[in-house]
Amino acid sequence: MVGGLRIGANKLNNRSHSKSGTDPGQSKSATQDDQGHHPLGQHPLLAGLTDAMPLRDMTPDQLQMVASEIRDVLCNLLATRTAHFASNLGVVELCLALHCEFDFRSDRLIWDTGHQIYPHKLVTGRYHDFASIRTQGGLMGYPNPHESEYDLFMTGHAGCSVSTAVGLRSGDKLRGEPNRKSVAVIGDGAFPSGIVFEALNNAGELGDDLTIVLNDNKMSICHRVGSVAQYLDRLRGTPLYSGLKSEVVKLLDRVPMFGDPAERLLAQMKEGVKAGLLGGMLFEELGIRYVGPIDGHDTTLLRKYLAMARETSGPVLLHVVTEKGHGYKPAAEDPVYFHTPPAFQEKSGEVITLKSDGNPAYTFHAREAIRKQMAADERVTVITAAMCQGNKLEPVREQFPDRFFDVGICESHAVAFAAGQCKTGLRPIVDIYSTFLQRSYDQIFQEVALQDLPVVFLLDRAGLTGPDGPTHHGLFDIGYMRVFPNMICMAPGYAGEVSMMLDAALQFEHASSIRYPKASALELDRAPSPIELGKSEVVREGTDGTIVAFGALLDQALEAAEQLAGELDIEVINARFVKPIDHEMVRRVIEADKFVVTVEEGAKMGGFGSAFIESAVEQRLDTRGVTVLAIPDEFIEHGDRNDLLHASSLSSAAIAEVCRDQSCASVAIQN
Amino acid sequence: MVGGLRIGANKLNNRSHSKSGTDPGQSKSATQDDQGHHPLGQHPLLAGLTDAMPLRDMTPDQLQMVASEIRDVLCNLLATRTAHFASNLGVVELCLALHCEFDFRSDRLIWDTGHQIYPHKLVTGRYHDFASIRTQGGLMGYPNPHESEYDLFMTGHAGCSVSTAVGLRSGDKLRGEPNRKSVAVIGDGAFPSGIVFEALNNAGELGDDLTIVLNDNKMSICHRVGSVAQYLDRLRGTPLYSGLKSEVVKLLDRVPMFGDPAERLLAQMKEGVKAGLLGGMLFEELGIRYVGPIDGHDTTLLRKYLAMARETSGPVLLHVVTEKGHGYKPAAEDPVYFHTPPAFQEKSGEVITLKSDGNPAYTFHAREAIRKQMAADERVTVITAAMCQGNKLEPVREQFPDRFFDVGICESHAVAFAAGQCKTGLRPIVDIYSTFLQRSYDQIFQEVALQDLPVVFLLDRAGLTGPDGPTHHGLFDIGYMRVFPNMICMAPGYAGEVSMMLDAALQFEHASSIRYPKASALELDRAPSPIELGKSEVVREGTDGTIVAFGALLDQALEAAEQLAGELDIEVINARFVKPIDHEMVRRVIEADKFVVTVEEGAKMGGFGSAFIESAVEQRLDTRGVTVLAIPDEFIEHGDRNDLLHASSLSSAAIAEVCRDQSCASVAIQN
Repeated sequence: MVGGLRIGANKLNNRSHSKSGTDPGQSKSATQDDQGHHPLGQHPLLAGLTDAMPLRDMTPDQLQMVASEIRDVLCNLLATRTAHFASNLGVVELCLALHCEFDFRSDRLIWDTGHQIYPHKLVTGRYHDFASIRTQGGLMGYPNPHESEYDLFMTGHAGCSVSTAVGLRSGDKLRGEPNRKSVAVIGDGAFPSGIVFEALNNAGELGDDLTIVLNDNKMSICHRVGSVAQYLDRLRGTPLYSGLKSEVVKLLDRVPMFGDPAERLLAQMKEGVKAGLLGGMLFEELGIRYVGPIDGHDTTLLRKYLAMARETSGPVLLHVVTEKGHGYKPAAEDPVYFHTPPAFQEKSGEVITLKSDGNPAYTFHAREAIRKQMAADERVTVITAAMCQGNKLEPVREQFPDRFFDVGICESHAVAFAAGQCKTGLRPIVDIYSTFLQRSYDQIFQEVALQDLPVVFLLDRAGLTGPDGPTHHGLFDIGYMRVFPNMICMAPGYAGEVSMMLDAALQFEHASSIRYPKASALELDRAPSPIELGKSEVVREGTDGTIVAFGALLDQALEAAEQLAGELDIEVINARFVKPIDHEMVRRVIEADKFVVTVEEGAKMGGFGSAFIESAVEQRLDTRGVTVLAIPDEFIEHGDRNDLLHASSLSSAAIAEVCRDQSCASVAIQN
Repeated sequence: MVGGLRIGANKLNNRSHSKSGTDPGQSKSATQDDQGHHPLGQHPLLAGLTDAMPLRDMTPDQLQMVASEIRDVLCNLLATRTAHFASNLGVVELCLALHCEFDFRSDRLIWDTGHQIYPHKLVTGRYHDFASIRTQGGLMGYPNPHESEYDLFMTGHAGCSVSTAVGLRSGDKLRGEPNRKSVAVIGDGAFPSGIVFEALNNAGELGDDLTIVLNDNKMSICHRVGSVAQYLDRLRGTPLYSGLKSEVVKLLDRVPMFGDPAERLLAQMKEGVKAGLLGGMLFEELGIRYVGPIDGHDTTLLRKYLAMARETSGPVLLHVVTEKGHGYKPAAEDPVYFHTPPAFQEKSGEVITLKSDGNPAYTFHAREAIRKQMAADERVTVITAAMCQGNKLEPVREQFPDRFFDVGICESHAVAFAAGQCKTGLRPIVDIYSTFLQRSYDQIFQEVALQDLPVVFLLDRAGLTGPDGPTHHGLFDIGYMRVFPNMICMAPGYAGEVSMMLDAALQFEHASSIRYPKASALELDRAPSPIELGKSEVVREGTDGTIVAFGALLDQALEAAEQLAGELDIEVINARFVKPIDHEMVRRVIEADKFVVTVEEGAKMGGFGSAFIESAVEQRLDTRGVTVLAIPDEFIEHGDRNDLLHASSLSSAAIAEVCRDQSCASVAIQN
């Protein structure tokens, strides 16, 4: 049947806002100790907020105390786990001011990208659950409508907030509810995403009321790039919207107009002067009223301008300047490290990392493979879409600054740009997370595959990404990459293959992709066999049945085979390619008349298992002994990768269990 | 193996530019009569152009004669077939001026969207082949690198030219060829596409030399929309870059600066005045030098400004104002009709349509279904991305102007906007061609499926679109839609189902999609059975084997069954749903122990056939009797839809042939 939703709905009891207050019974048991102490400290004001309404009546001093409590929660949380940190510290006052000036139980608020949602969750009835954030069954680290009516859209990908806000406003108007206001809060890092421009183009024409808060912290996850960023820098250089400037503008408006063409010229000069004075022409030209820049840590000032924006007719962009990491000095000084730092504690002013993030080994191996290729061949370039840090590419940027391209959160452009480079004879490597490469689907189609250009795609985070949840899991790429003619699709099963696959990819004369998850790479104590186009590799011999693993779950497959040792003698195959798939291997393992289990960390529909059975059907083989293990047709919540794998029957224990069952079943078929 | 390329390569003999002149032997035989007369008339200047080089030495008068010859070819061509017309008439002078000022055998030229490529083809050695354009095996109606080294990228989707041009420039620089210039020509209709903004953001920062020609004809295919369009209108209202204005700017530059903050204020005023005078602040703010607007039909003026842009360091946007349909009065007066008019002749000033475009019946039925739903339920809205004409939605726009939304060529925004509307309780219908909806892959994922919002997608042109070719065929949507949890995917098999499916879609509480090709809809002389979620329909009884058709190829399937009548008694099933697929039907037809042939007008990998065998494998059924007929893993050239279907074994005759073969094979298996 149609895919369902495994997210939060059951786990969090679908708790929606209620005037009757919190539901301490259940939430305490999850996140508070027996004495009712909050595990993240004592916060009397937050503890009393069952919704955001009381904020509206607070004095500036009280709001400041709430802000301090929020920062205390965030710092205490970060002593326990990896989470988004600096961006949340930066929006505390903005969040409070928004809730003071709007009622987001009926007004519409979209936090673009969504990782700056923590203060919002803390003041909208989720303080008591907060210690559960980013743990399985607990609060999501992103907006989640299943948690609260204060969250409208589950977000995680950048740039869509303005579009949805324009749609919400349009809908509320048509539905006869014009008093519901729409607000999009979007960071300067997300702002250059193409869809934002599309939304401004539409919003400027529709002219509906809309408040766009541009949260300008001068940062993407890494330092921001692009000419929009440079433009915002120039705007920040202008003094705040001041009495003096307003007066000059008023004066200009009183200058009388006279005969054409001099009149026209003067009118243009007047507009030009006004634009120069007021700034924001980029937005004004698109029909969006620009206001700012204003100090994003002055709650009173924010309230004043938000109130003005709220009452203004038509779309308004309020340029708010914040400091990423504000209120916690180490984070303000190094916001890149503190974007999602590993758990840490501060002792006598020094930040001490408590535990490492785990070894992001595939990412590390890929980075080293890129360096090696770039050192050996000066045609090789690397392109990232603002994920230099996530992809651990800093050393590449240092070593090859001329061949390293960070285009910002602009995945569509990244791919078309790579195609252009490739056409000149360069060999670009596009290094983008699986989930974010979805934003270039059409460019992979038209600019790369259709032109048959040998662009190499590295799909990091291809699989279950853990605590970030469904917007960040990379589950669809096997299906979306392999459908395009000319595309070669690979996945390494262990560490030693990564470099060899990249080397092979750069030899191919067609586009190719290499996917790998956010996980440690299996180390095998043998050298990999050479990579041959469309050829798999037998990693473990066996006669009772075969596990065919595509990608990193080779690790789990081998473990499953070990667990069954003595009971069943299992062959394990490292598929390497989903396209072209190894048709001979498919034939051989099916004709062995034993069971076959295929294993992949991706969506079941259209994935590796489908490719396997497509090959089998094409070859008229009997597929009754084939079992496809993959991620089922539902969105998967956040949680520990291993737990999530187990829930999808992809842990070693689960794979072993399926082998056992199939072993019996195949005996039954043979009899 | 890896998908190949069926486009043009073999057909056109991969003829590349050659100093030795045309290859009259082969090209004449294809497109000229026995006397060597060109079927589109006599054009002595064009006939002598083996490449674009001679244009550089022509006088303005000679260039004007070439322009006239080009317009004559276009008018004569349009008497024979449907083709892109008005846009090509509009760029004749621009095309000539470009080839005069650049040498695009080494310089890089990208025609965005590509349907305005005809004049370019006529002056780059393809005049003698030109009568073959848009016919199978003939020239493509879009740029095609297999035809000429003058064409770099096969384009068809809007907005990617700037990104590829930035990439080409970056590559040429790194490759040590800084003298190769990059030029992107992009229309004002394509300009608001998000990827353009992403590219400008990157180009402005990189600062590499680049000429962007904004071909402003005030039109998309329909009349353009959005605030960028309004902005361009304002720019057009300013006088051309004039001596007077330049003088004022020079004067301003001599105003002395003095102490801060007055200095700063004055500097801002100066910049403001300059901006007001020169226009183009939207681009200047992004680091792109703006020049224009200039008259796009004055070849001498165009040459002057193109030469200036060529020699300018850094990115330049040259705003060129053209008239869509220029030089042919009826087209200039009605450029919407004359975008791709049916073949016509003019007699005594009146345009007479010679043959109709064929009945675009699925599109018509869908439009009528939309009207019915909008009349019955005021929650229903419809959203198009600049395809009001293609989707025949004009009457909907007339009848329901408040619930009709044309967002321009901004598919990403269209889907996120629809999601916003849906969240307020509206029931938006997103009506977009299958191939263009690829541009919203990520929004379908995040804004619709993940939120589980009941947005309805109508995928027009889902299948082989005929003469437009590979950029316009809609072959991947079955795979890309069905992988998303919560998504319901349907396709009507005949006319009567369209309205019922839309009705059902609007009842579902999940997102849904309905795909249909650019083809006449089969009329059945029986009422459709009710649409039930995940249920197929038996359309023809039979006992010797089953054809399961998903979508409009039900027509061909029924014809195949008729052709086999007397020989084989074939059951024909109308699948209706690929998701959820009718598992009971899958079991029943496989267990009938006869052969099964699945039929769909979409890519084989991950398509309906894959869904069918996924279900079969899940149910442990024997798939050896199943044959999947679908579009093979290669890009399909342009041509007549029926011919293209036949080449992919999807014509009725081909399906019948496969049934015959399988009938023998299944007897063999049973024995």
